[in-house]
Amino acid sequence: MKLFSRLALAIVLLAGTVFADEGMWTFDNPPTELIQQKYHFVLSKPWLDHVRLSCARLNDGGSGSFVSPHGLLLTNHHVARGQLQKSSTAEHDYIKNGFYAATPEQEMKVQDLEVNVLVSTEDVTNRIQAALKGAGAPEEEFKARQSVIAEIERVSTQKTGLRSDVITLYQGGEYWLYRYKKYTDLRIVFAPEEQAAFFGGDPDNFTYPRYDLDMALFRVYENGKPIDSSNFLKWNPKGAAENDLVFVTGHPGSTERLKTLAELSFQREYDLPIWIAVTRDRIEGLQRFSATSAEHAREAGSTIFFAQNTVKALTGELHGLENPRIVANKKADEEKFQSAVMSNPDLKAKYGTAWSDIAAAEQKAASRVKEAYYHSTDSQLSSLAVNIVEYVAEIKKPDGERLPGFHESELESLRLRLFSPAPIYPDMEIARITGALHRDINALGPDNPFLKIVLGSKAPGQAAADLVNGSKLADPQLRKSLVEGGQQAVDASTDSFIVLARKIDPLRREIIKWTQDNVESVEQRAGEQIGRARFALYGKSTYPDATFTLRLSYGQVKGYPMNGTVAPPQTTYYGLYDRAFSFGDQPPFDLPQRYRDGMKNLDLTTPLDFVSTNDVIGGNSGSPVVNKDGEIVGLIFDGNIESLVGNYVYDVESNRSVAVHTAAMTEALRKLYGAGKLVEELTGGSGGQH
Amino acid sequence: MKLFSRLALAIVLLAGTVFADEGMWTFDNPPTELIQQKYHFVLSKPWLDHVRLSCARLNDGGSGSFVSPHGLLLTNHHVARGQLQKSSTAEHDYIKNGFYAATPEQEMKVQDLEVNVLVSTEDVTNRIQAALKGAGAPEEEFKARQSVIAEIERVSTQKTGLRSDVITLYQGGEYWLYRYKKYTDLRIVFAPEEQAAFFGGDPDNFTYPRYDLDMALFRVYENGKPIDSSNFLKWNPKGAAENDLVFVTGHPGSTERLKTLAELSFQREYDLPIWIAVTRDRIEGLQRFSATSAEHAREAGSTIFFAQNTVKALTGELHGLENPRIVANKKADEEKFQSAVMSNPDLKAKYGTAWSDIAAAEQKAASRVKEAYYHSTDSQLSSLAVNIVEYVAEIKKPDGERLPGFHESELESLRLRLFSPAPIYPDMEIARITGALHRDINALGPDNPFLKIVLGSKAPGQAAADLVNGSKLADPQLRKSLVEGGQQAVDASTDSFIVLARKIDPLRREIIKWTQDNVESVEQRAGEQIGRARFALYGKSTYPDATFTLRLSYGQVKGYPMNGTVAPPQTTYYGLYDRAFSFGDQPPFDLPQRYRDGMKNLDLTTPLDFVSTNDVIGGNSGSPVVNKDGEIVGLIFDGNIESLVGNYVYDVESNRSVAVHTAAMTEALRKLYGAGKLVEELTGGSGGQH
Repeated sequence: MKLFSRLALAIVLLAGTVFADEGMWTFDNPPTELIQQKYHFVLSKPWLDHVRLSCARLNDGGSGSFVSPHGLLLTNHHVARGQLQKSSTAEHDYIKNGFYAATPEQEMKVQDLEVNVLVSTEDVTNRIQAALKGAGAPEEEFKARQSVIAEIERVSTQKTGLRSDVITLYQGGEYWLYRYKKYTDLRIVFAPEEQAAFFGGDPDNFTYPRYDLDMALFRVYENGKPIDSSNFLKWNPKGAAENDLVFVTGHPGSTERLKTLAELSFQREYDLPIWIAVTRDRIEGLQRFSATSAEHAREAGSTIFFAQNTVKALTGELHGLENPRIVANKKADEEKFQSAVMSNPDLKAKYGTAWSDIAAAEQKAASRVKEAYYHSTDSQLSSLAVNIVEYVAEIKKPDGERLPGFHESELESLRLRLFSPAPIYPDMEIARITGALHRDINALGPDNPFLKIVLGSKAPGQAAADLVNGSKLADPQLRKSLVEGGQQAVDASTDSFIVLARKIDPLRREIIKWTQDNVESVEQRAGEQIGRARFALYGKSTYPDATFTLRLSYGQVKGYPMNGTVAPPQTTYYGLYDRAFSFGDQPPFDLPQRYRDGMKNLDLTTPLDFVSTNDVIGGNSGSPVVNKDGEIVGLIFDGNIESLVGNYVYDVESNRSVAVHTAAMTEALRKLYGAGKLVEELTGGSGGQH
Repeated sequence: MKLFSRLALAIVLLAGTVFADEGMWTFDNPPTELIQQKYHFVLSKPWLDHVRLSCARLNDGGSGSFVSPHGLLLTNHHVARGQLQKSSTAEHDYIKNGFYAATPEQEMKVQDLEVNVLVSTEDVTNRIQAALKGAGAPEEEFKARQSVIAEIERVSTQKTGLRSDVITLYQGGEYWLYRYKKYTDLRIVFAPEEQAAFFGGDPDNFTYPRYDLDMALFRVYENGKPIDSSNFLKWNPKGAAENDLVFVTGHPGSTERLKTLAELSFQREYDLPIWIAVTRDRIEGLQRFSATSAEHAREAGSTIFFAQNTVKALTGELHGLENPRIVANKKADEEKFQSAVMSNPDLKAKYGTAWSDIAAAEQKAASRVKEAYYHSTDSQLSSLAVNIVEYVAEIKKPDGERLPGFHESELESLRLRLFSPAPIYPDMEIARITGALHRDINALGPDNPFLKIVLGSKAPGQAAADLVNGSKLADPQLRKSLVEGGQQAVDASTDSFIVLARKIDPLRREIIKWTQDNVESVEQRAGEQIGRARFALYGKSTYPDATFTLRLSYGQVKGYPMNGTVAPPQTTYYGLYDRAFSFGDQPPFDLPQRYRDGMKNLDLTTPLDFVSTNDVIGGNSGSPVVNKDGEIVGLIFDGNIESLVGNYVYDVESNRSVAVHTAAMTEALRKLYGAGKLVEELTGGSGGQH
C-alpha cells in the first residue's frame, strides 16, 4: 500500500506536464482518464475504432473523413484547392465558380490525390532498438536505424499489400508500424466558390471570428465504383453547441513541443527569419508575374495563396518564440527536466550529454543554413529533374542506404507525384527561376558553386529562359520514360533540367550527407535520448510530437478572451454579411453573387464557424470534429492567431481550433447550392431536417 | 532668404513631435497647415465658429452638439444614463425600456444636468504671469496664481453674466479665460433601451468592432421654451464613409502627454494599481448588494457600470505604461527634450531643475498615496456632508484662498449638485460604507486616525447603519437649509453625517494642504517650467494636454490592423445580429425585443458604428463627428482598446475613436422607434430620405 501511494503521488506530480485540453494523442494511448475526470465521458474501443476507420489522410497534406456509406469524403476547400486548380482550364475555373456534380457521371476525377486510412498499428520499438545495439558513432546508428526501418516497411508492404510506414514517436522513445489502406481514385463532388470557402482572404486567415465555408466533398472510388465505406461518421446537422465536449481526429503535421532551448533558439535566430524572408521574396515575384495577365494570375493564384499562408504561420511562430513569457516557461520546464535527469546517476550517464550535443549541432547547422534556403531555383521542373536523377541512382542501392524519400515504401507516392499530368506553366517557371536566382546571388554572392553551375556566364533571366525552353519535362510521358529507362536513359538525356540536375547532384549529396552526419543524426540521437529520458520520468502520461499520423484531441466548444473583449463560441451567417458590408463588399471581403442572391433563403442565425479548445496544427485541416456519439459536428479548417505558437506550446487560455459548423454546411448545400440530394446522402435520407 | 529657409527647416524639425492625425487642438490654434497639407482642406474661421457654437459641454462629464434649430441636443446614452436613472422609478425604468417623447408635453425634465456653450475666449497669460512676478517659494506662487485666477473669473462673471473659467494650457505655458453660455433646463426627448445603447456590455466596452446605438437626445429649454439654437450641425443621414476627412469637436477630459517619466512611473507603481484595486473591491461590494433584490440591482446598476468602465480604462492605461516600447519611446523623447534644454544656458537656468524637482515630489507623494484612496467611506451622503461643512467655511474666505472646488465661478455648479433632488438609496449607502470601511481597515490598519473617528468602537456594518439611519441628508431641502444657514447652522447640526464631516474636516484639510505644498505646487510649477521650455523650443506647433475644454481633432475614417487581421472601417446592423446569435442571444449580448420584432423592417446593410483616426479621450463622449461641410456624420462614444494608452501616447498605427453612424441613428429612429417626427426635425423636414 505504501509503495502504491508513493507511486500514485509520483504520477500525479509528473502528469502535471500536461494541462487542460492539451495534446494530440495517439489512438493506442488516448487520454481516457483525463477525459473521464474532466468530462465524465468514457472513450471506448469501439468508439475509437469506428472513428479511426472513418478518418483519412490526404497526400496533399491534409485530413478528411468519410461521411456517407458510399465513399463521400469531407475535407477543406483549401486542401482540395490544388486539385481544383489542376482540373481547371481557361474556360472552367472551378476555384472561382465552385463545382457540384448533381449526378454520378458529373463527378470529376482528380489527377494525383491519394488518401490513406489507418487500418492497423504495431509497436516495433523493440525490434528497432535491438537493431541499434552495438552501433557506435551517431552516423553509424543513423544508418542502422534507416536500414531496419526500411526492412520492416518492405516486409510489411510485401506481406499485406498495405502502405506501411514506420513512425517515430516520443523523439524515438517509441517506433510504430502504421499500415494504411490506400485509395488513389478520387472524384470531386462538391466545392463552393473560393470566395465562400476563403472569405476574408489572407487578412482573416489564421484568425477568428471567421465566416468561411471551407469545405469540399470528394467521392472515393475503387475499381471504377464508389467504395462501400461502412465506417463513416454520421452527419449531425445540428452541429456543435457551446461547452460541448468534442474530439478532433486527424493528422497534425508536426510539432516541436519537446525541442530544446538550443533548437528553439536556432529556429528563432536562423531558420524562421530566413524562411520568412525567402518566402516573402517569392510572393513578391509571383505577384509581379500575376500582374502581367489574367491567365498568369490564375496560374500563380494557388502558389501565392500557400506562400502567404506560410509567411503568416511562420511569423506567428516566430512571434511566439520571441515572447519572453513563453521562452521563460520553456526554460523553466527544460531546467526542471534536465535537473531531474542529472540528479539520477543512471539517467545522467545515459542521457546527460544530450543537451550539449544538440547545442553543438545547432552551432554547426548555423554555419551552412543559407545553403538550405538559397541553393534553389524555386522551379517545379527542376524539382522533378532532381527527383528523377536521384531516383535512378537511389533505387539501385539497398533500401537502408538510400536518400530520404526514396525508400521502398515511399516510392508509389513519389511516382504518383513524378508522373502527375497536372499542368506546369512555362512562363511562371521562368519568372520563379529568375526571381530565385536573383535572391540566391544576393544571399550567397556570384562566386557560389551552385550558382556558377546554374548560371554559367548567363544573367538570371537568360538562364531561366534557356532552362525552360530547353526542356520537355512538363510532359509526364517524358518523365515516365526517363524513370523507366533508368540510369542509362537519364545519363543520355539532353533535356536542360536533367542536365542541370546531373551537374548539381554532387553538391546536393554533399550537403545532404554533411547535414545528416553533423546535424540530423546528432539531433535525432540526442532527441531520442531526451525522449527516452522523458519516457523514463513521465511515461506515456504525455503525448508525442505530431508526425502527420492519426491523432485524437479533445476539448470544448468555447469562446476566449480577445482584443479586450470575448470572442464568441460560434459565428453566424449574419456575420458573413456584416463583414462583407463593413468593408463595402470589396475583396477579399466580397460576397459571391450566389450569396447576395440567395440571402433571403438562408436562416441567417445558422451557426457558420465555431471554436473549440482542441489542440490542432497544420495537417489537421479537413479533420472532422466529432461528438460523444461519434457523429460529425464540424470540420476543422484553421486555428486562431493565438494557436500559431502551438508548434512549441499549447496556450491554455487562448489556443483555439476553428471549424465549419455542420449546420452551416447543411444550410448552404440545400439553400444556396441546390444540392439537396447531397444533403440527403449525408443525413441518410432524412434531409437533415430537425 | 537664407534665414527664412533655416527657420523653415527648424520648424519642420521641431514640428516632428506631432505625427499623423494626432492632437486635441484648441480652437485658437487649429492645425490648419497640417490639415491642408495632408487633406487639402482649409479650415475657415466661419467653419470653426459655427462648429464651436454648435457644441456643448455637459456637467456630467461629456460632450454634445445641437442638431436642430429648436434646441435638440445629441449626446451619448451613457452620458445621459445618470439622468435617466434619476428620472426612473420602480414603475418606470427608462434605462431598461428607453424613452421617447412623441409630443413636446412628454419631454421629461431632468434634475441636475447643466450644459455650457463656449461663446468667447481670451488669452490672459500675461496678466497671470505678471501677478506671479516676485512670488518666491512654490506655495507662495501657487497661492498667488489661485488668487489672480479667481479674480479674473469673478470680474468676468460679474461683467458678462457668463460662466467664466480660467484654464491652464501647455502645463501653464498659457492661460485662457473661457466664457460659457449656460443652460440648466434640459428635457429628455429620446433614449433607446440601454441594451441597444450598450449592447455587448462590459466585455465590448472600450473595444471595436462594436454594434451600439449609444445615443440620447435632449431638448434645451430657457424660460420654459425650447431655445432658438441657430447654431446647430446639419444632420447628414448618409454619414461618414471610409477615408473621409472628419473632425471631432468636443471636450476631452484630461491627458498627460507631457508628464515626465518620474510622474508616469508614480502612476504605474502607485496610483493606478491602488485605484484599480479599490475600484474592483467597490464593484464586488456593489454586486453583492445587487444580488439581494431586483430593486437593489436597479439602484446599483449605474454605479457598477461606471466603476467597471473605470477599471477597464485604468487597466488599459496601466498596460500601456508597462509596455516597454512605449516606455522606451517616452524615455527617448524626454532625453532629447531635456538635453535640448540643458544645452541652452538660458533655458537650463530657468527650467533645468524641473525634472529632478518632480522626481522628488513623486517620492513624497508615494509616502502618503494610500490616504488619498483609503480615507473614504465611499458614500454619497458623506460627500455631500463634507462639501456642506467645507462650503460654509470656505465662502467666508477671499476667493483666492479657498479650497479647490469652492471658487466663486464654481459655486453655481456645486450648488446644483448639492441640491439635486436625485434619490439616494439608504440600503446602498450602508452597503457602500460598510465595504469601504473594511477595505480601509485592511489597507491602513485599525489604528488609523481617520478610521478611529469614523468607527469609534463600532464594527463597520454598525457604524454604516448608524450613520445612514442618523441622517436626513438625503432630503435636498435639509442640505439647502444647512448651506443657507451657514456656519452657524452647520455647527448646530446633529445630523450624523454632518457631525462626522466636522470631525474629519481637520484631517482632510491637513492632507489637502500637505499635498498642495509638497506635491501639487511642485508639480504645477515644474510642469509649467517644462511647458514653457517646450514652448520656447517648439512653440504652438504642438497641442496642449486635454483640460475638459473644447478641442478640435481631425482624422480619417479607417480600419486598422487587429488580432492578426484588419478591423473594418465600419460595422453594420448585420453585425449586431451576428454577435447576438453568436452568443446565443444571452446577456450582455441579448437583443432588445424591439430589435427581434423589428429586424424585418431594417436595412441591415446600414452602417452602425465606425472608427476614425481622431485623437479623442474620455470627456469626448457625445462629441459630434463633423465632415468638411460642417455637417454631423457621427457621434463619438468610445475609443478602441489600443487607444486607452492615449492618456500618455497617441498610437499612430492603431489609435481609433469609435462613433455611432448617423445612418444607423436615422434608420433606428424611423424604423424601430416610430420616431419619424424626430427624424424630420433632424433632417429639416426631408425625413432623411436619400
